[in-house]
Amino acid sequence: MRISINKTISTPIYIQIKNEIREMIYAGTLPKSFSLPSERKLAEELGVSRSTVIKAYEELKTLGLLDSHMGKGTKVIIENYNQLLNNEKHTLPLSWYQFFDSNIAPANDHTIIDIIDMIECKNTIYFSGGIADPELYPVDTIHRLQENLYKKCGKDMLNYSAVEGYYPLRDSISQLMKLRHISSSPKEIMILSGSMQGMDFIARTFITPRDVVIVEEPTFMGALQSFKLAGAKVIGVPMDEEGIKTDILEILLNKYKPKFIYTIPTFQNPSGTLMSLERRYKLLELAYKYQVPIIEDDPYGELRYEGNPIPSLKSLDQYGYVIYLSTFSKILFSGMRVGWIVAPSPVIKKFSIIKQMTDLHTNVPSQYILDSFLREGLYEDHIKSICREYEHKRNVMVKALKKKKNSGISFEIPRGGYYIWCKIPDGILQPQLLLKSSHKGIVYTPGNVFYPEETDGNNYIRLNFTFENTKNICYGIDKLLEAVEESASEIDPLSDYKQSLKKPIV
Amino acid sequence: MRISINKTISTPIYIQIKNEIREMIYAGTLPKSFSLPSERKLAEELGVSRSTVIKAYEELKTLGLLDSHMGKGTKVIIENYNQLLNNEKHTLPLSWYQFFDSNIAPANDHTIIDIIDMIECKNTIYFSGGIADPELYPVDTIHRLQENLYKKCGKDMLNYSAVEGYYPLRDSISQLMKLRHISSSPKEIMILSGSMQGMDFIARTFITPRDVVIVEEPTFMGALQSFKLAGAKVIGVPMDEEGIKTDILEILLNKYKPKFIYTIPTFQNPSGTLMSLERRYKLLELAYKYQVPIIEDDPYGELRYEGNPIPSLKSLDQYGYVIYLSTFSKILFSGMRVGWIVAPSPVIKKFSIIKQMTDLHTNVPSQYILDSFLREGLYEDHIKSICREYEHKRNVMVKALKKKKNSGISFEIPRGGYYIWCKIPDGILQPQLLLKSSHKGIVYTPGNVFYPEETDGNNYIRLNFTFENTKNICYGIDKLLEAVEESASEIDPLSDYKQSLKKPIV
Repeated sequence: MRISINKTISTPIYIQIKNEIREMIYAGTLPKSFSLPSERKLAEELGVSRSTVIKAYEELKTLGLLDSHMGKGTKVIIENYNQLLNNEKHTLPLSWYQFFDSNIAPANDHTIIDIIDMIECKNTIYFSGGIADPELYPVDTIHRLQENLYKKCGKDMLNYSAVEGYYPLRDSISQLMKLRHISSSPKEIMILSGSMQGMDFIARTFITPRDVVIVEEPTFMGALQSFKLAGAKVIGVPMDEEGIKTDILEILLNKYKPKFIYTIPTFQNPSGTLMSLERRYKLLELAYKYQVPIIEDDPYGELRYEGNPIPSLKSLDQYGYVIYLSTFSKILFSGMRVGWIVAPSPVIKKFSIIKQMTDLHTNVPSQYILDSFLREGLYEDHIKSICREYEHKRNVMVKALKKKKNSGISFEIPRGGYYIWCKIPDGILQPQLLLKSSHKGIVYTPGNVFYPEETDGNNYIRLNFTFENTKNICYGIDKLLEAVEESASEIDPLSDYKQSLKKPIV
Repeated sequence: MRISINKTISTPIYIQIKNEIREMIYAGTLPKSFSLPSERKLAEELGVSRSTVIKAYEELKTLGLLDSHMGKGTKVIIENYNQLLNNEKHTLPLSWYQFFDSNIAPANDHTIIDIIDMIECKNTIYFSGGIADPELYPVDTIHRLQENLYKKCGKDMLNYSAVEGYYPLRDSISQLMKLRHISSSPKEIMILSGSMQGMDFIARTFITPRDVVIVEEPTFMGALQSFKLAGAKVIGVPMDEEGIKTDILEILLNKYKPKFIYTIPTFQNPSGTLMSLERRYKLLELAYKYQVPIIEDDPYGELRYEGNPIPSLKSLDQYGYVIYLSTFSKILFSGMRVGWIVAPSPVIKKFSIIKQMTDLHTNVPSQYILDSFLREGLYEDHIKSICREYEHKRNVMVKALKKKKNSGISFEIPRGGYYIWCKIPDGILQPQLLLKSSHKGIVYTPGNVFYPEETDGNNYIRLNFTFENTKNICYGIDKLLEAVEESASEIDPLSDYKQSLKKPIV
């Protein structure tokens, strides 16, 4: 057995010895039952310490190549290596792409991922995404609650909870729902790892490939992705200032038999629209008439900066047609990933089957903490204080957007929520504006991701006003308007004409 | 406007007023623009305080039925109620069952849910499930780490993280993987909300309905459920004391082209089997030969109570055919729901698409805490101390099971992990034994849930030895043996004969 070691390189000697012996075993030079020299002897031969050889032998034992017994020395315990190697010679690294299911194979939309990645770049002003202002996180309160909980029930906080969620939290949320005029028992409430998980469960429970699903247009891109991944044909219904256009909806309900209607009636994402009460009644009426369930997504409902509250669809629904989704992510913080769903019990039962097969239950310490937060009555005051701040930030952004006359940007002032939905001048190429803005250190979300057909929405961008501080909002909007102006000045007046030339002549 | 109130019933007066007015609006008795009496006037009429009426009107405003303006009084603002009501008269509560996708509709296997629910019954001795001993949770350490983290980076801990996980934790796990002889960069590691989530992602990424998936028989029921829900045909391969029988596997690989092979090579769930090194090489060889990926699930690998470690498949795999799953749930505690997957980067990319559409990312505070735990070097000592305890508990359970000669129960002593897999006497009816045991306050998991075809496994039960204390283990096993004895004494010697009579005569 010849081993050559090199004391001048940085690889530790014992690793060199291990690798040499391993290669000899792999190559069949050292066959099964071959007796290796004793540690002392090999150490002498190589001019190294005995402990170095011991270490090398230990590594090889851990790899399952050697074994040693008192008095019998150290032996090779693997055979068939030659044969194995012969087979392996033809082995190619696996091409994983061939194994992906056809639904997931083409999916490469990393929009949310890319956007979140961008937060890492500290110098970017971030109007994209929908993140609460970290300065408003009640960190000290959460810390205090946690402190008490660890003292009182440390072990329980680290153990499993029920699949549907920690019961006291379901109960506290049932109380919170009463404040939103929704009467629901804790058994009709399921705790989710963020309300996005509810979207996934809905998609998996209801959608059979090629089912039709109806959404507002534009709508939350996460919902679009979930429904499409489950194989749904997603059809958008336009909105006006009162919300989803129910006349068009009725035509679609007549034409298709959709599995459900997905809506964000209050301070809609991305448009900021607040669905009027009459429109809500009309929507319910259509759901009843055509026997179609409604999925009401309500992450922003309590973030109201002006006007009277309008009751949720769930609170108006008398016949159990509405599934209601909400979350703590937009009110408190998103890192804990805790949301909830209110649904009739047959639906909760199906969801719990999927829940136990995905993450079993939601993070328990976070469920305890949020339950404490609600029970101590801290929620209402927190809402009030963040609404004051966000109203101010919204006003700052609106003012900044209006500073330049003739910027070509137009928008409705949202009465609540997280976003301003801006129309940009016709003819501006979205990728060009995105690039120009990012060079100026500004990111926003381009409109097309909110449309079922991503070819739509090119005239819109979504701006979030909750995350950045007011200084950055002012500076960032200035830069954005610059980028819009520059892009507009580069619009090719003949582009429409050129585009028309490309179309086939019929 | 006539309102009748009843002061003798428990419904608050303002609610009675609200309900009466609401009914009148619904019924069209109070049409749109109808002026309600002033609060003062109505209070006088009804003989109640003014604040009661104010409260009732406020509720009606929140419901969107009334509005009031200074000097103009309070008016009804809803029309079309008659029409709405006419439509609604024919509305039936929605029958949700008709909307469920056909995959999910028949799913009603609540085994894990039911078992977890049972923990709530404090008087039950719990040999079912796979839960770490709560007495061994490092509660004080976690509390201390958390304390430091809140002081140092409270805000960041509550914010979003990257979809693939908090990078420092991915890095710490990459170091941990080195101790398991797996070399992987942080980019090949994705943090999961429990390793069960990995199973779900694998099912959704790889399985197209009617694909064949190969598993050990018996195997983890959660994996069976996930694969089946995704539409796979799941085929089991028997095991012997060295693990999966690779000769039978090869026949199946020849016959089918399976999407992947799912295995728990080390201290298998439920059988406790430790796959031999030679078998591991043989399994890899077959994977290479037939170009089939291997999913290696390793929740128990570090819980070794005797014998030498055997390297994981992932550490032996030279060609990137193995996806490796692990978790903190069995080593530390399960309430935080943090696991991880090590996979080639094309797979991590697909998983991150699904991750962002399900829970976006794993709970951030827990990722920070586990990262601190690993970085402070607390993991290795923790493993050592729990292995000592679990070895002891295993020995106690083995001794208790062997106390009665001729109990008819037989088993192999597992060299690690969480479970003892027991064969019970032929002829005992599983539901009867389950019932008898539960009457004696003992729960365990019946063998059939671990088989692809649940008609198999009726001669086995799985006992967990980590959760209960040694006193309960002794007492519980005594009771279980009693139940087995009683069930055995009731075996109908003619049952086989009777059963055969029921079969159609061919």
